[in-house]
Amino acid sequence: MILTVTLNTALDITYRVRSLRPHASHRVSEVAERPGGKGLNVARVLAALGHEVTVTGFAGGHTGAVLRAMLAEAPGAPADALVPVSGATRRTVAVVDERTGDTTQLNEPGPQISPAEWAAFLGRYQELLPGASAVALCGSLPPGVPVGAYAGLVRAARSAGVPVLLDTSGEPLRRGVAARPDVIKPNTEELAELTGSHEPLRATQDARRRGAHAVVASLGADGLLAVTPEGHWRAAPPAPVHGNPTGAGDSAVAGLLSGLVERLPWPDRLARAAALSAATVRAPAAGEFDHAAYTELLGRVRVTGAAGAAQAGSGPSW
Amino acid sequence: MILTVTLNTALDITYRVRSLRPHASHRVSEVAERPGGKGLNVARVLAALGHEVTVTGFAGGHTGAVLRAMLAEAPGAPADALVPVSGATRRTVAVVDERTGDTTQLNEPGPQISPAEWAAFLGRYQELLPGASAVALCGSLPPGVPVGAYAGLVRAARSAGVPVLLDTSGEPLRRGVAARPDVIKPNTEELAELTGSHEPLRATQDARRRGAHAVVASLGADGLLAVTPEGHWRAAPPAPVHGNPTGAGDSAVAGLLSGLVERLPWPDRLARAAALSAATVRAPAAGEFDHAAYTELLGRVRVTGAAGAAQAGSGPSW
Repeated sequence: MILTVTLNTALDITYRVRSLRPHASHRVSEVAERPGGKGLNVARVLAALGHEVTVTGFAGGHTGAVLRAMLAEAPGAPADALVPVSGATRRTVAVVDERTGDTTQLNEPGPQISPAEWAAFLGRYQELLPGASAVALCGSLPPGVPVGAYAGLVRAARSAGVPVLLDTSGEPLRRGVAARPDVIKPNTEELAELTGSHEPLRATQDARRRGAHAVVASLGADGLLAVTPEGHWRAAPPAPVHGNPTGAGDSAVAGLLSGLVERLPWPDRLARAAALSAATVRAPAAGEFDHAAYTELLGRVRVTGAAGAAQAGSGPSW
Repeated sequence: MILTVTLNTALDITYRVRSLRPHASHRVSEVAERPGGKGLNVARVLAALGHEVTVTGFAGGHTGAVLRAMLAEAPGAPADALVPVSGATRRTVAVVDERTGDTTQLNEPGPQISPAEWAAFLGRYQELLPGASAVALCGSLPPGVPVGAYAGLVRAARSAGVPVLLDTSGEPLRRGVAARPDVIKPNTEELAELTGSHEPLRATQDARRRGAHAVVASLGADGLLAVTPEGHWRAAPPAPVHGNPTGAGDSAVAGLLSGLVERLPWPDRLARAAALSAATVRAPAAGEFDHAAYTELLGRVRVTGAAGAAQAGSGPSW
């Protein structure tokens, strides 16, 4: 079982409007709703790839109840190990402008988590770890969760011998990296914020020095850049893919995790992650991936680089 | 008991953001939620004025359940005679830009109403009419409700001898007016759409000729213009009021209805409606009214005009 952690789950709402104009009134032509938060998105893609998945984190209020009901009805539904909280799960609203195709995003902050609720989560996490083949820690922290939360969760996974991937940003990422996660997957902006460098290769190498065993940077249209104990590689689709990038990073995480538990060599993991990511950008619905496009792209992703190119002996590999 | 009808109830959500920029991602700093739809807003103000109120219309799905729970907890809660439907009550999202104070509005279309659900509503409405001292028909129609719906509801109220106020727009207003409601309360835009005239007095008189016994036009900062069988008047606060106009029209409707059932003369009804409307614009929360401001403004609203100024003998007065 692969475990994904989403501390700030969300009910993702997508609105289509003819043209978004600030300070005007808009009739929404189409409404879509689905369970969200990075870890739930990762779980959805893992389930579509045939993996057994368990999701944990927090859910509460009427939005939390809707999220859990939708999760249970999803095809290949992940096991629901979410911890109930008294506050309401946040909503995110994505407003798609039909004229330009652009999206405007409104993200609620999430419920206040009490110390007792945080303790309940830590108990649940410890119970779940022994059954997990890998764990992904994903997304922002809701109010009340300590900023060093991910560092503690990384250490607990490592103590339990479970490979751990961290995908977050800002101070939670900075602290989490110092706890030596097996993989981090920052995007260009998160990587620059962590390292102070806007040069991807330099920043990726610096992120490894800060503690991450492997760093897979998602560089948008430029694909993925991986610096690992086994070597470093770039993986990119043969041509830029047009569409909606929402969820592309989460699909890449699912590709990396599934490749990890299937013990694929790094180049194959990266090809899978890049193909899933591109197939997500190309899908008509935000955050979904197009299976046919994935299969087609998988054979055409170019992976360049070499094993052993990074410093050897910098940690155990899996 | 005053009956308000809201066929397209809504869960009104207000987001505060630092500055709304299309195609960017925004962190919402504050989230507020309340039961909405014009008839529910009218009921809230009537309850605050001490009137017994019953609300009917449709509610369904998880948003409908939240709306009904919040309605039950409201101070001076109106009696809930909403008819359950299988579709979900719509949400409206008002995004307040903290920098400019302006609001951007996103309105979901509302649930599809089946013929059986519409028939269930008509039965409920007929049961409620005999106990009502007045009825307000408010807002847009959800998908599936016939466009002539309000015309039928106006006729049923008139047959039952219950004074009826209609506050809607477009084709539902055009058809509803022809059924001879006692009062309509269009704003400038709705009045122009109905009559083709942008000259308020001419348009208001034309709306009467189309069937409305009395027309009270809300002219924004210019206050109210009333053309009734008893005379015509203008009512306006002593100086323009600054703030958020959301719900100002609904407060005016509550002022008119309460004055009607209390058998106040038209100038007093209009003074109350104009003061409530201005006190709503001035309140910090959208759609609420400021009690102290209302009391203060009530004594200062100027009502000008004269009894008998309109054509006499054009229908029964109440």
